[in-house]
Amino acid sequence: MWDIPLDRKSGISLQHQLYQTLKDSILSGKMAAGELLPSTRDLAAELGVSRNTVCAAYDMLWTEGFIITRQGAPSKVAEGLTLDRAVETESAEDSVPTETNIRWDFKTGQPDLSAFPWKQWNEGIRYAADSLTGEQFTYTGTKGYEPLCREIALWLKRARNLDVDKRDIYITSGSTQALFLMVQLLRREGHAFALEDPSHPGIRTVIKDQGYPLHWMPVTQQGAEIAGLRGHALSAVYVTPSHQFPLGSIMPADRRATLIRLAKEKDFYIIEDDYDSEFRYTGSPISPIRSMSASRVIYVGTFSKTLFPALRIGFVVLPKALQKQWRHSRTYLDVQNPMLEQAAMAWFLQTRKMDKHIRRMKHVYSEKRDALLAALTHVFGDTVIPQGDASGLHIALQFPGYIFGDDFMEQCKKTGIRMQPVSKYSSNGADYQDTLLLGYGHLSIAQIRDGIKALKQDIRLATIDFI
Amino acid sequence: MWDIPLDRKSGISLQHQLYQTLKDSILSGKMAAGELLPSTRDLAAELGVSRNTVCAAYDMLWTEGFIITRQGAPSKVAEGLTLDRAVETESAEDSVPTETNIRWDFKTGQPDLSAFPWKQWNEGIRYAADSLTGEQFTYTGTKGYEPLCREIALWLKRARNLDVDKRDIYITSGSTQALFLMVQLLRREGHAFALEDPSHPGIRTVIKDQGYPLHWMPVTQQGAEIAGLRGHALSAVYVTPSHQFPLGSIMPADRRATLIRLAKEKDFYIIEDDYDSEFRYTGSPISPIRSMSASRVIYVGTFSKTLFPALRIGFVVLPKALQKQWRHSRTYLDVQNPMLEQAAMAWFLQTRKMDKHIRRMKHVYSEKRDALLAALTHVFGDTVIPQGDASGLHIALQFPGYIFGDDFMEQCKKTGIRMQPVSKYSSNGADYQDTLLLGYGHLSIAQIRDGIKALKQDIRLATIDFI
Repeated sequence: MWDIPLDRKSGISLQHQLYQTLKDSILSGKMAAGELLPSTRDLAAELGVSRNTVCAAYDMLWTEGFIITRQGAPSKVAEGLTLDRAVETESAEDSVPTETNIRWDFKTGQPDLSAFPWKQWNEGIRYAADSLTGEQFTYTGTKGYEPLCREIALWLKRARNLDVDKRDIYITSGSTQALFLMVQLLRREGHAFALEDPSHPGIRTVIKDQGYPLHWMPVTQQGAEIAGLRGHALSAVYVTPSHQFPLGSIMPADRRATLIRLAKEKDFYIIEDDYDSEFRYTGSPISPIRSMSASRVIYVGTFSKTLFPALRIGFVVLPKALQKQWRHSRTYLDVQNPMLEQAAMAWFLQTRKMDKHIRRMKHVYSEKRDALLAALTHVFGDTVIPQGDASGLHIALQFPGYIFGDDFMEQCKKTGIRMQPVSKYSSNGADYQDTLLLGYGHLSIAQIRDGIKALKQDIRLATIDFI
Repeated sequence: MWDIPLDRKSGISLQHQLYQTLKDSILSGKMAAGELLPSTRDLAAELGVSRNTVCAAYDMLWTEGFIITRQGAPSKVAEGLTLDRAVETESAEDSVPTETNIRWDFKTGQPDLSAFPWKQWNEGIRYAADSLTGEQFTYTGTKGYEPLCREIALWLKRARNLDVDKRDIYITSGSTQALFLMVQLLRREGHAFALEDPSHPGIRTVIKDQGYPLHWMPVTQQGAEIAGLRGHALSAVYVTPSHQFPLGSIMPADRRATLIRLAKEKDFYIIEDDYDSEFRYTGSPISPIRSMSASRVIYVGTFSKTLFPALRIGFVVLPKALQKQWRHSRTYLDVQNPMLEQAAMAWFLQTRKMDKHIRRMKHVYSEKRDALLAALTHVFGDTVIPQGDASGLHIALQFPGYIFGDDFMEQCKKTGIRMQPVSKYSSNGADYQDTLLLGYGHLSIAQIRDGIKALKQDIRLATIDFI
């Protein structure tokens, strides 16, 4: 008797159910090598199904080599198929970790998506979907959609006063990918990557994961300290010269010129991350270092902060000497960006909706920044020194005399505040323990005010341990 | 006299033009360190612009550190800013190479985009744009959009008879990225990656670029020959078991079982690329090897061939032991996929438009395949042996006794045919010189017929050199 359960309501065809059950029996060893299968006629009769159903199931088993069938002889189980299914036990459920409840989330790099002009953006998506032809959805090249490169060149001129040839612009899926590819491209045995200290931990992780040595540049009020670079063999120097992340200092022109001269002399590249430079609230805009050298500076831009993170469009302005290798590396990394968003982005720039959006967001963020500064003064008086508040979506807050350690972090977690000391961004995890980093771009003014009040409470409770 | 050309019609503000010209003069050394600038009043008068304009330009130069300004004293050029601009000469224009005119393009991996249901797809895009909220466009996680993972699990059950937990599905931007990440994840000192010989050259490039050693498995009528694996230290074995690329053979169940046992014993992973398995024209569908082991098989799927390449959505089914590391690596590679297409894809699967599309394309491709086989018989009689024609968008054509070398390739280029011998896909570039690879999925039936006629001509002209 062949005890094969068939479920006529499952939506899965009977032949597939039969095939699956027989296959499972063979793999588990319930049916041994050489064992004869019933004839299609007998099995069909026993299961109350048509003979065609059984024939189809046997045919699948035969095509995949589970059974051997010869003319005029019964089918039998093939050799060597038993798998020890017990060994298939997998490691304990390794689920995606979920976050605990956070009431005031001061994490950095989060734009305010509630103020984004979704209607206009969706108009761009519709325009792109309607105007692109089928041929434009095949493999269209690693460099990126040509009209988008053109519009980005025009945008850089308008927004950053930067003259760039559209042929030197390469589309990426964001700054993380840009950095990843740069590490691949610039890898040289015995050479290091120089990074600002402090800097974004994600950047060092990308570089360290690739097995690349790091060299740290301390950050001063003049941006990264580059005097120490001379004695080192370097592939690249990664800088945020117009608004240092996270402290906000600006690298002055003489230091920029020195860095470029050093790059030429010692044959390294300068990677300029023009992080959130679009949002500058006071003073004139700062020109990118790229405007001083096209051959030594790799300019990295992204729309993750100006538009939205799940867009996944950024770009690099590449020195010509790196372009061929870039195309090769991107091809064998992930081929290219999706087409639809590239075309929508080109439209958004071309119709100047981008300019209008940035103007509006500058206003929105500037009001939040003012509210944050006012709340800080109200709550902490002049005991706190804000840094890097002239631009961007975050500020650094120095509390002279305080030390924000693990106890403070633990307390914040209990209160529901997400916030990190700048020490988490420093190379040794110890410097800048008196400075907190607050991302505020995505928070409402009410959230900002309440969050600062809650912070006061945590700091008061925490200081006893620290001072 | 300050000879500063200002263009009042350029659309660039006068203050920016003035700033730019002065900055260029400083960087080029035309204005030396310590040199005094004219007073804002004098320069404004000379250029015929308002004094505010000059003040704004000076302010930008001062903020960026190009000039030094003290109360009551004239501004002067800062130290150390001269850059030798002559050294900025870049290497010769390194433009993206363009293709010569190809009339019959038999390249592989190209779906027929003229038959794609763009209207329905755009309906999905609109649905996604309208139904997603702003919050869903922030960073939403490396794993991928949850409803898409769920729909892919259901699709794998419907289309491939494969039972997969949606929690084990991770969205990628295509199979290239999947392979790239796998090489990163499975890298072990002294261990090799085993590849089928012949196989897709792109796959070996991804692996070799990462500095990973290769081990070749010859391909027979039974798929990859795995007997030689035992003596080697391996990280992974990359196979196309259901439709070997490019020869089309199927790996039978006993060899699959042996491979899984070997993977467990010797602690390596099996990467199963289920390349174009959706388009099978004759016989029953072949189950993926993943159905025989969840802990040792990494199943790689993509929608580049079933939908369109510029979609950039694929997926992997990952053993639980690899998932945490995968999330880390993807985060520091490019963070995540864009959101919009993920939601549209989920809708396309959920509404069963995918199923309908695949059914329709199977019919379209099957007609093209029949036309190709008929044209081959008509033109070449029985001198040619088609291989791997039971599924996919390409076939391999063996011409016993012929050798397709560089002369033949050159001739094809002249005629306007793009086509490669399978030798280009073999490890030594020499085996399978008598076999041509023809991708036909994207060609019309008329193009296929004309292309085969043109091929006859090339082969006739070329044989003299070869036989």
